[in-house]
Amino acid sequence: MGCGLVPMRVGFVQFKPVFGRKERNIKRILTLLEFGVREGADLLVLPELCTTGYRFKSKEEVRSLSENVPDGMTTETLIRYAEENGLYLVAGVCERSGERYFNSAVLVGPEGFIAKYRKAHLFNEEKLWFTRGDTPFQAYRIAKAKVGMMICFDWFFPEVIRILALEGAQIVCHPSNLVLPYCQSALLGAAVQNRVFIITANRVGSERGLRFTGMSQIIDPNMNVLAKGGRDREEVKVVEINPKLSDSKKVTERNDLWADRRVDLYKPLLKTLR
Amino acid sequence: MGCGLVPMRVGFVQFKPVFGRKERNIKRILTLLEFGVREGADLLVLPELCTTGYRFKSKEEVRSLSENVPDGMTTETLIRYAEENGLYLVAGVCERSGERYFNSAVLVGPEGFIAKYRKAHLFNEEKLWFTRGDTPFQAYRIAKAKVGMMICFDWFFPEVIRILALEGAQIVCHPSNLVLPYCQSALLGAAVQNRVFIITANRVGSERGLRFTGMSQIIDPNMNVLAKGGRDREEVKVVEINPKLSDSKKVTERNDLWADRRVDLYKPLLKTLR
Repeated sequence: MGCGLVPMRVGFVQFKPVFGRKERNIKRILTLLEFGVREGADLLVLPELCTTGYRFKSKEEVRSLSENVPDGMTTETLIRYAEENGLYLVAGVCERSGERYFNSAVLVGPEGFIAKYRKAHLFNEEKLWFTRGDTPFQAYRIAKAKVGMMICFDWFFPEVIRILALEGAQIVCHPSNLVLPYCQSALLGAAVQNRVFIITANRVGSERGLRFTGMSQIIDPNMNVLAKGGRDREEVKVVEINPKLSDSKKVTERNDLWADRRVDLYKPLLKTLR
Repeated sequence: MGCGLVPMRVGFVQFKPVFGRKERNIKRILTLLEFGVREGADLLVLPELCTTGYRFKSKEEVRSLSENVPDGMTTETLIRYAEENGLYLVAGVCERSGERYFNSAVLVGPEGFIAKYRKAHLFNEEKLWFTRGDTPFQAYRIAKAKVGMMICFDWFFPEVIRILALEGAQIVCHPSNLVLPYCQSALLGAAVQNRVFIITANRVGSERGLRFTGMSQIIDPNMNVLAKGGRDREEVKVVEINPKLSDSKKVTERNDLWADRRVDLYKPLLKTLR
């Protein structure tokens, strides 16, 4: 294989968990993952909080549905599946850590547990249940790419994808439970400004009065939407990409997006306003 | 007038300069500005390098067409027009400063010259002629709003609008000579992530083999496109906005986009990669 071309098959699993029914949801996820495996997926991204559901009503619910990571049912099941089927998975998990709870994502693969990311920017009622994340925005090497993670509302902060890209992520995995109408269009700019792939895996359906928007999508570094889900259906879509397309930050003969950054003018980014 | 509502009329002037014919271009601009004034504009944004044209072929061309700012023909003409008609203008100017040249924008109003901004991120051949900007990303108070400036390719760097918004800009004025196809869609996300208005004033037509994309636009903080130009026509569009809409960074009862920023996790933004 020449020219640094490493084709890779990546996808999203858009689905509808049932609140609180973890075993049922895990079973459904395993069924859906089969579709991805049959399409030769190397990496599949699942939604945020994909085995518990989203809309908690009490800390007690969070406590009883949360799990340790990686020693909990959701992560262990995903690790086993990744090992048996030789692929990588990113999925949202309701994490318990002592008396604290995090809205987290895990990255697992054939080699087992790789990393967890704890959501840094909590949305609305999540602030009642979860502690805001303390993990850095980081890129992890998997077999054919370097991947980063962010969760749902994190997209609203352009700093997140920017840092993931600066850290070397070629693919940003984005487990989501989106309810606002903006994200799918808004991330087009982030993909081209950072020259990364973005896989948003959203859920569908309603839960305790909240409607989720579906339309999971895969965007490439040239702002092309390679795959898109519908508004209501559960579905799995897998496309072939070349992650190395993300490595070149050149946009013209004389413009490299990293070399052109004016860090000398960017200090106000770190100022705090409240 | 109650409730902090300060309605304001803002617009773009999309037009086609003829390379090197400054007096002709200024005359054409003055004609087009009349349309904006008749529509009651408080603020009009003109394209990048709007009186010289864009595609220089030699430093000698740049030298002979460039002007001091504010003591040059373009800025002086715009100041006079702003004073006589009681409105604010932002326009791209080819600036001379001793032996250095900048791709600049000026902000002028009824009170005269207010500020200049020198393009921080130079695109392609501009690097042959211009010195990269040394002015900070800053917000300026005008009668009914606070405005910031960026020029064309600056949009590719999410840091720019982010800083302008953090500095208090409600409206980002964006004189442009766009040739790539991304900007118009890509800025949707920036508008909602920063809750600012963005006025992109692009040029149309071709010049020495470069084709400009038109489709100037005004986006609001909720990601609505309030006005859009065509691909080829010269046109002036003016809409009414409430700049104070930008002041609230609240997106839910519990989410304020400024308070929610995780500056503690953003330090990698200032790292330099080449």
